[in-house]
Amino acid sequence: MIDITDRVRNKDLLGKIVSAEEVANWIQPGWTIACSGFTASAYPKAVPLALAERMKKDPFQVNIWTGASTGPELDGALAEVKGIKQRLPYQTDSKLRPLINDGTVDYLDLHLSESAQLTRTGFIKKKPNFALVEACAITEEGNLIPTTSLGNAASYVQNADTVVVEVNTTQPLELEGMHDVYVPLDPPNRLPIPIVHADDRIGTTFIPCTPDKIKYIVPCDVKDHTRDLSPIDENSKKMAAFTLEFLKAEIKAGRMPKGLLPLQSGVGNVANAVLEGFVEGDMTDLVVYTEVIQDAMLDLIDAGKLKFASGTAFSPSPAGMDRFYKGIDKYRKYILLRPEEISNSPEVVHRLGVIAMNTALEVDIYGNINSTHVTGTKMMNGIGGSGDFARNAYLTIFYTPSTAKGGKISSVVPFCSHIDHTEHDVDVIISEYGIADLRGLEPRTRALEVINKCAHPDYRPMLLDYYERALAATKKAATPHLLHEALSFHTRFLETGDMRKF
Amino acid sequence: MIDITDRVRNKDLLGKIVSAEEVANWIQPGWTIACSGFTASAYPKAVPLALAERMKKDPFQVNIWTGASTGPELDGALAEVKGIKQRLPYQTDSKLRPLINDGTVDYLDLHLSESAQLTRTGFIKKKPNFALVEACAITEEGNLIPTTSLGNAASYVQNADTVVVEVNTTQPLELEGMHDVYVPLDPPNRLPIPIVHADDRIGTTFIPCTPDKIKYIVPCDVKDHTRDLSPIDENSKKMAAFTLEFLKAEIKAGRMPKGLLPLQSGVGNVANAVLEGFVEGDMTDLVVYTEVIQDAMLDLIDAGKLKFASGTAFSPSPAGMDRFYKGIDKYRKYILLRPEEISNSPEVVHRLGVIAMNTALEVDIYGNINSTHVTGTKMMNGIGGSGDFARNAYLTIFYTPSTAKGGKISSVVPFCSHIDHTEHDVDVIISEYGIADLRGLEPRTRALEVINKCAHPDYRPMLLDYYERALAATKKAATPHLLHEALSFHTRFLETGDMRKF
Repeated sequence: MIDITDRVRNKDLLGKIVSAEEVANWIQPGWTIACSGFTASAYPKAVPLALAERMKKDPFQVNIWTGASTGPELDGALAEVKGIKQRLPYQTDSKLRPLINDGTVDYLDLHLSESAQLTRTGFIKKKPNFALVEACAITEEGNLIPTTSLGNAASYVQNADTVVVEVNTTQPLELEGMHDVYVPLDPPNRLPIPIVHADDRIGTTFIPCTPDKIKYIVPCDVKDHTRDLSPIDENSKKMAAFTLEFLKAEIKAGRMPKGLLPLQSGVGNVANAVLEGFVEGDMTDLVVYTEVIQDAMLDLIDAGKLKFASGTAFSPSPAGMDRFYKGIDKYRKYILLRPEEISNSPEVVHRLGVIAMNTALEVDIYGNINSTHVTGTKMMNGIGGSGDFARNAYLTIFYTPSTAKGGKISSVVPFCSHIDHTEHDVDVIISEYGIADLRGLEPRTRALEVINKCAHPDYRPMLLDYYERALAATKKAATPHLLHEALSFHTRFLETGDMRKF
Repeated sequence: MIDITDRVRNKDLLGKIVSAEEVANWIQPGWTIACSGFTASAYPKAVPLALAERMKKDPFQVNIWTGASTGPELDGALAEVKGIKQRLPYQTDSKLRPLINDGTVDYLDLHLSESAQLTRTGFIKKKPNFALVEACAITEEGNLIPTTSLGNAASYVQNADTVVVEVNTTQPLELEGMHDVYVPLDPPNRLPIPIVHADDRIGTTFIPCTPDKIKYIVPCDVKDHTRDLSPIDENSKKMAAFTLEFLKAEIKAGRMPKGLLPLQSGVGNVANAVLEGFVEGDMTDLVVYTEVIQDAMLDLIDAGKLKFASGTAFSPSPAGMDRFYKGIDKYRKYILLRPEEISNSPEVVHRLGVIAMNTALEVDIYGNINSTHVTGTKMMNGIGGSGDFARNAYLTIFYTPSTAKGGKISSVVPFCSHIDHTEHDVDVIISEYGIADLRGLEPRTRALEVINKCAHPDYRPMLLDYYERALAATKKAATPHLLHEALSFHTRFLETGDMRKF
């Protein structure tokens, strides 16, 4: 067995060290397991793998709560054996996704900032059967030193009567001190979250826990299964350039302070391109208040452009992780991980005045956003934290390439087939064709702005035709629509495989 | 002229007293006028009436910013002469509504909590041409004592270079002290809003202003044009009873503290019925953190059930207003008016854990809410503050009678024709048939809950049929829909005048 004795600083706890199989055998069908993990960072690995092995012979299901998505050792392995009944609050696993879309898995797609409170208050279920948390080490007091993310781990540990800790020996002890753990009281006792700057520390460097709560400790030497970044494509580069141009113009117009405001960016190609744009750009002293910290942040640090980055997960590529570990003494001064209830807190996001940059699956001509459902029915990933930021940001930008599937799908449609962010919450939409600045525009003007600036030229005539006929048919109603055609782009795609008319 | 010399305490300002006509003649076409007023409370009356008179002979348009809706002397009079070009952030006037739906008026339907910031930061337009504010009195320092609402008045005065004050002699001076004016700094300088209890005072009892900013002072003796309450109908009584039953069960289940949490309720029949339900009920020490304070609050005070009510507008019926004025020495201890940026603050709403109770125009089977658009195209009123509360509340309830137009419209539809609040934000839907408790339910289960608990029995078979065929067609996708039929209830209504199939 992997030796973790030096990482379990309370020696009375050494007797609780068991194998992952022993924990897997203890788990009962129907249990709710509240896990650490946010993206492929700091999720438990050994116990889920052993549980999946057991389920191969002895099929049953459990409920899995996490911070957000996880890696293949948790969502992937359990999906493979159809071992998950309820899953919340977010996921991205390619094996789990089909099960959400065939009735096998009950998927609760929640605003990430709300997921901890929804479980604490019992709105979903008051207590998980146990909390399963990856840690770097356990202190003498029984507190847990987190690894590469915080997610909902602290809240889950607080609310659970029983805790199982995976001590992961691949995670360096230098991570200690990079976390700021604060779990708010619930109403009527909640106080202001005292963060006024992105780098303010308000909590502990550990997840509070006690030795008696810890039932089992499992050694683990499986690394975070983070993904390689795909190279930045041309469309993403264009959207990044538009963003920088737009933000500079905002500063010049006096609508944005000179040093910008804290940046939030979603995960993926566009987010990565935008941040890389800042690496090349001339703005300095950038501040980030986001969910997920990826490779571009290391580039920004090395380029001397980043003042501070606050997030809930550190989830770079494998190469980025190596680079981080090698330079950890430097990088740790710039990076702080918080619970997602704080990284995504409406209160803090609004106070700091975050610039929210997230990707849409599709947008409609009035500025509504679909972040979750392909053709309105199939869950892709989930809303994640996009709503936390979009709703409360100082400036809310959504990105989408103008088309998908080689032009067969227009990302700009008359009416979104599912709406996760409403027109009220969206300031700016950017595609590789341009910037639709919707601020201060009423819906009829917004429609023209979105069509003319963001839609693909192949689709502009179709969209304009829809809009103009809707305008005439409704005699210039506030939000013109032809309801019998509003979803026709989608139905045409479902019938012919192409949104275009030929 | 009406004598206001005793209400203008800075005697140097007496020379600025002019007639409403003089101010009306000074106003230029295309100007933006930022007004006080939230509901039919504390909106300017004399100047808009005079401006409308001038526009009858000399037609032109101005932009009107307010706190929310106003009374007929502002929105109604200017709509009658087509004198409004841009209008924000909310309205309810029956003469203005058609102009929003025929292309005459550019209506910006904004989250109320955001409207002040959107103008302060220049996202819409940095400076109004002047701020037009109703006041009880002007202090020696030039500060303004507000009347029956605060709305955005303080922020508008702060941002304007020029202020015109309507001193309203129908408003008693006893209103002084009932306000708590706090305008947050904008990022990057924003600090926590230090409200921890609904009755915390954090600001001034006046709108800060200076004598040099005040250009004109206009006497006015026109009363707030508040509306009579319609008698509470049977459906509202049923929804109110369901609410009380539900909240009691929540307390019993330990999901709600014994004394409940602060109540927010929208304006109208259902809200009124719910609050009247509390008057009859056995819960005491109720706290209200809401936008609009109406008659039911006086009933709660008289019944000894209310501890405190915080809002931004005091807008009772004319009879309620008389009753308030007669008992003002008592009532003023229980009521505090704040800027809408604070009464609707996401930060404070989330911290206090408000119970948000708002009315929907229609709901869909997955829990999305249409608050604004009739058949998806015609603006009814606007989103108002419903999104501020729904998104950040501890518990979010939406109400709708199951049908409208004598059964010809089902308020429960397969897919909302416009979405203002997404499934992610909605906990509970209540109709006169029952309570759909959507917490912890995935979409497929939510659909059955909404249909079976809230839909009218005439529509349940149609909705179930839609859902079951969608489930089969999508092979149990996460959110089953038949996109070519999703809006068929609405198109049938537009074609036949009835959503039912015969």
